[in-house]
Amino acid sequence: MKNEENFMQEAIELSIKNVRSGAGGPFGAVVVKDGKIIARAVNTVTRDNDPSAHAEVNAIREACRVLGSFQLSGCDLYTSCEPCPMCLGAIYWARPDKVFYANTKKDAAEINFDDDFIYQELAKPMQERKLKFVQLGRVDALKAFEEWRLKGDRVEY
Amino acid sequence: MKNEENFMQEAIELSIKNVRSGAGGPFGAVVVKDGKIIARAVNTVTRDNDPSAHAEVNAIREACRVLGSFQLSGCDLYTSCEPCPMCLGAIYWARPDKVFYANTKKDAAEINFDDDFIYQELAKPMQERKLKFVQLGRVDALKAFEEWRLKGDRVEY
Repeated sequence: MKNEENFMQEAIELSIKNVRSGAGGPFGAVVVKDGKIIARAVNTVTRDNDPSAHAEVNAIREACRVLGSFQLSGCDLYTSCEPCPMCLGAIYWARPDKVFYANTKKDAAEINFDDDFIYQELAKPMQERKLKFVQLGRVDALKAFEEWRLKGDRVEY
Repeated sequence: MKNEENFMQEAIELSIKNVRSGAGGPFGAVVVKDGKIIARAVNTVTRDNDPSAHAEVNAIREACRVLGSFQLSGCDLYTSCEPCPMCLGAIYWARPDKVFYANTKKDAAEINFDDDFIYQELAKPMQERKLKFVQLGRVDALKAFEEWRLKGDRVEY
């Protein structure tokens, strides 16, 4: 447990430093493998003009770069705040063993990071969402899927 | 409508080219602003060892880079397949006006891209998810949020 607390402390310190540096929101994350931190990251949305640059996504990208893999099996993710739906999705695609978090999404909502709207939208059928979705061109698009299905040397993920 | 079909056709062509090049899955996306394509992207998960590098996320990143903004207001996103939860989250953070898609998530599931598991997990309370989540260190982590709340020159997003 002691180690886990130390790893989380590192994520929290990153989140505090990030408020002071102004790179983005008050969030930090680290990825741990075999008892060692292999990636450290903060939220850089506003510094990098990248709405996907949340601490968790940045940490996942960096850990994958370090490992030369698109999977984080055998790794744990420590994040200073409960992940938003985008980060959760990225986490599921990266497949770490476990996720540790500190602040909750309710804490985040109280400082105006309201992921709740996104959670609600995702749970709705497309036609009931506030954001408009239009389907177009499926017959042509299916050709890519058919070609993928038949491709002998495809790399699955 | 004609223009919309052309933009989608471009996303679909990117998806087909991507199967042949082998950079990643059979997915392409473009971002359109004022009747012009400002960003084109494909899925590069396996080429870049980046589980977040779906076509939509890559297109959002590129469009934001081109615009020098972390917001895509006034833009439409065209994607050759209905977005996964991660991409949906990224789309909501980027805030485009509209999303056009071609293949459905059911089509994607049939070639083994099963986003449905992630949709199901997101909808569950944390303790019922297959992936283990552990809370740790909230009292310390709240300090970053408090510092953010009090920061006079914070850039909100």
